[in-house]
Amino acid sequence: MRIVLGANQYGKAEVRLVRVDRTVPRHDLRDLTVGVTLAGDLTDTHLTGDNSRVLPTDSQKNTVYAFARRYGVDQVEDFGLRLARHFVDSQPAITRARVTLAEHGWRRLGPHSFARDGAQTRTATVTVSGAETVVESGLTGLVLLNSTGSEFAGYVRDPYTTLPETDDRVLATEVEASWRYDAPSLGRDWAGSYAGVRSALVGAFVETYSRSLQQTLYAMGHRVLDTRPEVAEVRLALPNRHHLLVDLTPFGLDNPGEVFVATDRPYGLIEGTVTRAPAEKSDPPPDAAGPADGED
Amino acid sequence: MRIVLGANQYGKAEVRLVRVDRTVPRHDLRDLTVGVTLAGDLTDTHLTGDNSRVLPTDSQKNTVYAFARRYGVDQVEDFGLRLARHFVDSQPAITRARVTLAEHGWRRLGPHSFARDGAQTRTATVTVSGAETVVESGLTGLVLLNSTGSEFAGYVRDPYTTLPETDDRVLATEVEASWRYDAPSLGRDWAGSYAGVRSALVGAFVETYSRSLQQTLYAMGHRVLDTRPEVAEVRLALPNRHHLLVDLTPFGLDNPGEVFVATDRPYGLIEGTVTRAPAEKSDPPPDAAGPADGED
Amino acid sequence: MRIVLGANQYGKAEVRLVRVDRTVPRHDLRDLTVGVTLAGDLTDTHLTGDNSRVLPTDSQKNTVYAFARRYGVDQVEDFGLRLARHFVDSQPAITRARVTLAEHGWRRLGPHSFARDGAQTRTATVTVSGAETVVESGLTGLVLLNSTGSEFAGYVRDPYTTLPETDDRVLATEVEASWRYDAPSLGRDWAGSYAGVRSALVGAFVETYSRSLQQTLYAMGHRVLDTRPEVAEVRLALPNRHHLLVDLTPFGLDNPGEVFVATDRPYGLIEGTVTRAPAEKSDPPPDAAGPADGED
Amino acid sequence: MRIVLGANQYGKAEVRLVRVDRTVPRHDLRDLTVGVTLAGDLTDTHLTGDNSRVLPTDSQKNTVYAFARRYGVDQVEDFGLRLARHFVDSQPAITRARVTLAEHGWRRLGPHSFARDGAQTRTATVTVSGAETVVESGLTGLVLLNSTGSEFAGYVRDPYTTLPETDDRVLATEVEASWRYDAPSLGRDWAGSYAGVRSALVGAFVETYSRSLQQTLYAMGHRVLDTRPEVAEVRLALPNRHHLLVDLTPFGLDNPGEVFVATDRPYGLIEGTVTRAPAEKSDPPPDAAGPADGED
Repeated sequence: MRIVLGANQYGKAEVRLVRVDRTVPRHDLRDLTVGVTLAGDLTDTHLTGDNSRVLPTDSQKNTVYAFARRYGVDQVEDFGLRLARHFVDSQPAITRARVTLAEHGWRRLGPHSFARDGAQTRTATVTVSGAETVVESGLTGLVLLNSTGSEFAGYVRDPYTTLPETDDRVLATEVEASWRYDAPSLGRDWAGSYAGVRSALVGAFVETYSRSLQQTLYAMGHRVLDTRPEVAEVRLALPNRHHLLVDLTPFGLDNPGEVFVATDRPYGLIEGTVTRAPAEKSDPPPDAAGPADGED
Repeated sequence: MRIVLGANQYGKAEVRLVRVDRTVPRHDLRDLTVGVTLAGDLTDTHLTGDNSRVLPTDSQKNTVYAFARRYGVDQVEDFGLRLARHFVDSQPAITRARVTLAEHGWRRLGPHSFARDGAQTRTATVTVSGAETVVESGLTGLVLLNSTGSEFAGYVRDPYTTLPETDDRVLATEVEASWRYDAPSLGRDWAGSYAGVRSALVGAFVETYSRSLQQTLYAMGHRVLDTRPEVAEVRLALPNRHHLLVDLTPFGLDNPGEVFVATDRPYGLIEGTVTRAPAEKSDPPPDAAGPADGED
Repeated sequence: MRIVLGANQYGKAEVRLVRVDRTVPRHDLRDLTVGVTLAGDLTDTHLTGDNSRVLPTDSQKNTVYAFARRYGVDQVEDFGLRLARHFVDSQPAITRARVTLAEHGWRRLGPHSFARDGAQTRTATVTVSGAETVVESGLTGLVLLNSTGSEFAGYVRDPYTTLPETDDRVLATEVEASWRYDAPSLGRDWAGSYAGVRSALVGAFVETYSRSLQQTLYAMGHRVLDTRPEVAEVRLALPNRHHLLVDLTPFGLDNPGEVFVATDRPYGLIEGTVTRAPAEKSDPPPDAAGPADGED
Repeated sequence: MRIVLGANQYGKAEVRLVRVDRTVPRHDLRDLTVGVTLAGDLTDTHLTGDNSRVLPTDSQKNTVYAFARRYGVDQVEDFGLRLARHFVDSQPAITRARVTLAEHGWRRLGPHSFARDGAQTRTATVTVSGAETVVESGLTGLVLLNSTGSEFAGYVRDPYTTLPETDDRVLATEVEASWRYDAPSLGRDWAGSYAGVRSALVGAFVETYSRSLQQTLYAMGHRVLDTRPEVAEVRLALPNRHHLLVDLTPFGLDNPGEVFVATDRPYGLIEGTVTRAPAEKSDPPPDAAGPADGED
């Protein structure tokens, strides 16, 4: 067996870009962190240090800034599409370009003033490989909590199980979601889709009576696909931010679901994809699984 | 010279407390990180390991949870006052108790549902020493940005100065503020004061034409004292989150204040206190220093 | 198209385990962070909240601690193999278990005393799917720097390229490596392999004259496979921790490769796999590519 | 009461400096993070935005780099002394300069190769105010653990105390230490003092039978002052990194001090100063307090 180069890629990570549109009376502000990853015929630089097919990562960074000036920064998906297409089209050695974008939110305070809105980050990953284009949008940092309407029972009890069943617990998670679009193209209504998907995720979390975080996850993904026909698939990672009821009996106090310690780790981590399949019989809508009186 | 024990203190740091009030139809949620620091006659445990005057930090933690059940958690200042007073009153060896509290914000989504609001953290530090009580409230994590209305010029040019003067720059900072109250007492309108101070800080940042971040700092502190008579003093730490204009000329592009790289470090750090002094002549209100046409 | 559940998994993340062996005069200390991820027939809990096939993540955590007592914690790979096999064998619904382990190093100070060695973390990922077992060991946090013996030139110059070529630069990276073993089995000499692979990685980094970080990456991977027959494949992610020469000419000073600013972001990120393929002709050993006088 | 400016200061934080000495066959590498803080007559910039007394923080950063070239970077204390003195001497408005330095360790791998040593960071704070100079050296990130030789008992039991006494626990902490020198001056043996103080801290931690972390803290500080006459005072902050014994009885297993969960928070935090006072009677050496058979 000889030793060979396998899959490889390279690029520039964490390019910080802030773009202010001053051509309007009320300035517009966009705050992005952008990453570029290129793949293609890069064997020479690995084997002999011949860089004649290597576009420096510094040039990739420069391209991000130049494109921000040339095309503006409106929707992150469009900005990513332009960049990814550019690298594949202009670099003969490059067969695949992936651009990852995170948009940090700001809230307007005045015509030229803003406050950072730390509640969530909007993300996009755009991949161009030859003629194929994949756009996945997403969000991170959306922390949600239901103070009731969640139980956990009926699970496997193996010799290592000590967890008591509960019919009323705090359910909290930090949503990391990404969804893939059908037929993405420059200039479609990304903002509308983002708002709609976000609303579906939050709505399903709030309204689903939860027997497991898995059930909540599926309800969230189901609602996205049910309400957003442009979305082909949604992936969710939901850490279970455990809130443990504190035992106050040593101090002569009860604790009827009131005082909790919020733990950092360990934490449960539930990950799943909800997707579309050729029609046979439809799965039941997940919300129907909840008892009528359990909904918030 | 003999070797002796100097100043010392101990306590429990980062107690994570979430309290849900389920006695109301729309649940109330409070999310705190609490620290306790005690000082007093603690020489024995240091010199001989005699712990007879040491209240375990574990007990301090338990007290936080028990008090949350016994008294509820409404305003962090009141919660801190109860705790600090308790430790000084109940522990003969303890002459000073300091309780630090950080309240993490949540936004309501429904009767039992919430989303974390990461834009800022409300803080309080309560110190009880014998009969004296000091309450300092504050906030951290408030990131503000003005996209114009800021210049920086006329500064010292020493042999190491290369910075070009600018008459129009992005000014961004992450406000860390704390303010001390006159005559603090249990049950006063902490929430009203917090909202008022926060509003004064934000308003002064937004409305001040800035010739230096120091000028902005003083304007912010001045406005707090000017509008909130219950505040005796305000301290501000304002990191200057530099936004550097990207040079796009190599790419045949101009950059009229549009495309910036947001840097992490190094950063300027401006710290100052604005306070009250016996009346002689009043300092001019700082906002008056700005040119009439420079205001947002 | 109907909506269906796609790929999914769940488990417990970041279980912190410290195990002290006190049965020996000089205590042995192991400090691990363990994660468990299970996959299998988990449709019911997602669709209806029926948890009858769900082993709680709390039980998974308990298993980690119980196994540490029952079997001890020697090599992380063996500990992971026992855990992963256990979950697949004991849970009818589970068809794949993955255990990730990070071992935090400690240096001995005395028979019962230790200092944390923060220079690197040893990792392992063990995956059991039916009869198949995959063991990938690795390391993170190994920061390496060559102060000479690195150049970067001859690269693509597109319209966005401004980077000057250099024939002598600082090359620094934080190695993240993982390697897959041929035919893994309980009790093999994991510690010996780890030491050997680590030594190969460090040796190749130090001794390779580098024309690109890609070339260094390939040399590192090549040396691992060349010297460790038990390794089938090695994956490397090498962020390029840029050290930028400071322009001191405004101060009347030259800077002959002496004073640098170490930047955090953006950074280049070079990722690649070095693997084995059926023998045809062997690739040349990568180190031979360096000039004779360029080696350290 | 009029509103006035109180205490204030400003400067540049987190300047990242790497200096390579290439004039020697085996290169020397220094990796520092430097901060500068200036105070003086800065009222004008606060009140009116008149910056004529403000040396830009950008110039302060430039000075750090220029001084690294001009004077080299050997001991952080000397580098800080030169910088602090420079700012006070060259800026008429500045009456106090404080320079904080953190040196990140690297281990040599070869003549031009290094690996980051993450086990600790050496620090220094140099303050020059007119003729007065204060040098405090320190360290952070030194994580120590004793797996036996530590008990905690005999403490106050108040109504909130549930902690069981223990006669054998794991004691772990992350040492943050700083010590002030008598009569500091350029060029003294800072490296020797650092090594000696570090050795005293580690030695006392390892060798002290501990009845409380306070006792360990005092022993550490005492040993520094006892062995290093050049040190006037030492300050220590010791977080108690709790290692909780896991209850394995539900699984039919005992746990004789073997399997622990290492917790992140909350944590105890013990802070204290050990200093020198005019001779009366000497405090007993703290180590003598331990039982003869309790020492490691």
